[in-house]
Amino acid sequence: MKCEIIAVGSELLTPYRQDTNSLYLTEKLNEIGVAVAFKTIVGDRKRDLVSAVRTALSRADLVAVMGGLGPTEDDLSREAVAEALGVGIRRDPQQVVALAARFAKSRIQMTDNNLKQADIIEGARVIPNINGSAPGLWLDTSFAGHRKLVMLVPGPPSECKPLFANECIPRLRAVLPVRHIAKRVLKATMIPESTADALLAPIYTTYKDVETTILAGNAEIQLQLFCAKPSLELAQHRVDELASRLEEALEEHLFASSDEKLEQIVVYYLELKQETLAVAESCTGGLLAQRITSISGSSRSFLGGAVVYSNELKTDFAEVPPELIAAHGAVSAEVAESMAQGIRRRVGSSMGVGITGIAGPGGGTEEKPVGLVYIAVSYGNKTESLECKFRGDRDRVRLWASQQALDMVRRRLM
Amino acid sequence: MKCEIIAVGSELLTPYRQDTNSLYLTEKLNEIGVAVAFKTIVGDRKRDLVSAVRTALSRADLVAVMGGLGPTEDDLSREAVAEALGVGIRRDPQQVVALAARFAKSRIQMTDNNLKQADIIEGARVIPNINGSAPGLWLDTSFAGHRKLVMLVPGPPSECKPLFANECIPRLRAVLPVRHIAKRVLKATMIPESTADALLAPIYTTYKDVETTILAGNAEIQLQLFCAKPSLELAQHRVDELASRLEEALEEHLFASSDEKLEQIVVYYLELKQETLAVAESCTGGLLAQRITSISGSSRSFLGGAVVYSNELKTDFAEVPPELIAAHGAVSAEVAESMAQGIRRRVGSSMGVGITGIAGPGGGTEEKPVGLVYIAVSYGNKTESLECKFRGDRDRVRLWASQQALDMVRRRLM
Repeated sequence: MKCEIIAVGSELLTPYRQDTNSLYLTEKLNEIGVAVAFKTIVGDRKRDLVSAVRTALSRADLVAVMGGLGPTEDDLSREAVAEALGVGIRRDPQQVVALAARFAKSRIQMTDNNLKQADIIEGARVIPNINGSAPGLWLDTSFAGHRKLVMLVPGPPSECKPLFANECIPRLRAVLPVRHIAKRVLKATMIPESTADALLAPIYTTYKDVETTILAGNAEIQLQLFCAKPSLELAQHRVDELASRLEEALEEHLFASSDEKLEQIVVYYLELKQETLAVAESCTGGLLAQRITSISGSSRSFLGGAVVYSNELKTDFAEVPPELIAAHGAVSAEVAESMAQGIRRRVGSSMGVGITGIAGPGGGTEEKPVGLVYIAVSYGNKTESLECKFRGDRDRVRLWASQQALDMVRRRLM
Repeated sequence: MKCEIIAVGSELLTPYRQDTNSLYLTEKLNEIGVAVAFKTIVGDRKRDLVSAVRTALSRADLVAVMGGLGPTEDDLSREAVAEALGVGIRRDPQQVVALAARFAKSRIQMTDNNLKQADIIEGARVIPNINGSAPGLWLDTSFAGHRKLVMLVPGPPSECKPLFANECIPRLRAVLPVRHIAKRVLKATMIPESTADALLAPIYTTYKDVETTILAGNAEIQLQLFCAKPSLELAQHRVDELASRLEEALEEHLFASSDEKLEQIVVYYLELKQETLAVAESCTGGLLAQRITSISGSSRSFLGGAVVYSNELKTDFAEVPPELIAAHGAVSAEVAESMAQGIRRRVGSSMGVGITGIAGPGGGTEEKPVGLVYIAVSYGNKTESLECKFRGDRDRVRLWASQQALDMVRRRLM
């Protein structure tokens, strides 16, 4: 079954706004075996809308129209679908009552234009919308002699997504062959995408029944595994089998088996091992601390940190001897290690991290170029440091440095 | 003139990837007076592609096809456009030479499939692509008796955007009436969108010739002003006039007159006034420091910070007396003020910020609920604090707290 998604709204044709609902709809449709073949974005002009709906009816079996169901004059999806199908519209007394009750409950005066939301396309069934005043509509109809399913769903994401998942998907399931799906998201870091693919392709290509997608970005790699079978056990078994083989191949590069964030994994291991962490950051400027503390519950393991831009602060907060900075420079393995040890001692944590480097765009020299970052972890009776050379702009260097630091902490904890 | 943008690529019909090039194309097209009436996203199937191109030709004057110009079998945009227009394709000897030269230069073996990129649709002119091997194509043609402009541009953003801006836009300008445009982006913070709109709508609605868009998100409001006129002076004059009136109405809520980030403005004022800053953060966990240090050159004014999650660290790094924490609790105006004063004294900066609060989801009580945050700024001989109650989840509370702190620093510096 082929689906076309039509996103309605003139704001979606400006440089400032983009339809994102369709990604969610696509995920839900894929899960029940429906592929999205086209997406069309169209404004609030009736003629354009009718043209978009007609085109969709002519090339897809299932048409999902998102948006344009509100009370204003610009909300024309009902009218356009009716015109494209060549049927009428009638005001539904039950919906009028429901609307009036909704407004009465929220003590808001119902203006006349709201009654538009009680209009039903001939032959359509109402899809209740518990998160808004505009109900969805469902049509099982025909166009040019072919059976077509048409859904009209509201545009606001807080209404569109639950209505689609809880109301539309079950209705679609009822008319489609039964399929059960299993999914897994594996994540790895500090391995180039091409290396990962060369390593993993020989494995996942032998699982023809599991759809595997590799996505790279934000200093990590995601492996999306997806399998549909007549029974859930079968689907889960195939996904889990492939996942274990990929996990094994990725070795210590793998950090998440179920879509967790790297900082989440770090906080999890800290708590599991009853360890505590403190960080001293120079070039990442608080980004590492911010990522760790973005995880709820991190305060049990993360004691604190210092953003030590100046040399004086490196000494005051992270106990780096001024002689060490004088001898090796602030950007050096020695200073990173001293920062990790110093912040650990100072804060009284069982683990310490030190980061010092040149994020750019200024501040680089031939000897110490932009992108050079030293990262150290002090834990037990060992302090280890790594010299990194990150490519890219300031944001990228900082992101990769924080990612590398989190990954070093993770590996030391495992 | 009405434009349809067609984004080609099966990956754009998955839940994981989205066309974003079209936002950039839309911006550039709007600047020369072309409105985007439809966007279509279509996969790499030839039949679907031909259908999408035919539909676009029937309802738009200008069709921009993005992607599908590469060397693989899945790259079918040339073939689809030729079929939709009913014309042929020929291999261009000049392009073959150019391709061979390009590969020779990069010392990469040119495989045969690359020759596909030298194929030209009959009647098309080649648009040079200095950032990739697939050139763009430009057709000034007709369809069903109407003049149509068709552009084929490569999909990768690093090729698509410069090619579109530097090659397509000048070609379009040459066939369109002359228009000059002026733009401005104003930004304000700590004012609700509805309040801003009520305040500003009576002003901007009287400037019918300036298109004004209000966007809210990330704890700030953006006002996009856009004006097209036969002369640049005229357009600039109207935009600047409206901008000054809006700036005046927004009073101290306005922080940027040319699209700057709040942290950029803060760093700018710190440097201008030759002040230095240090921050002590609890619930924001480094987010404030991270935002400030994300600005290149911030190291001249930002001396450092402390992430003081534990009470011991509040005392050690930010010199908060333990008695004060015992008397008022760690989340209190008194502790925030003491943190601001303490970090300032400790680091030796001329300004200090203290933030303490409950980001959630855990840790809230009836007396001190999730979202309660105290923010203090110490500067000159005055320390001021603010009690804030932010709605939303952990990420939102932390973002708003960092935004409020930056805004307080900005206001004190002005």
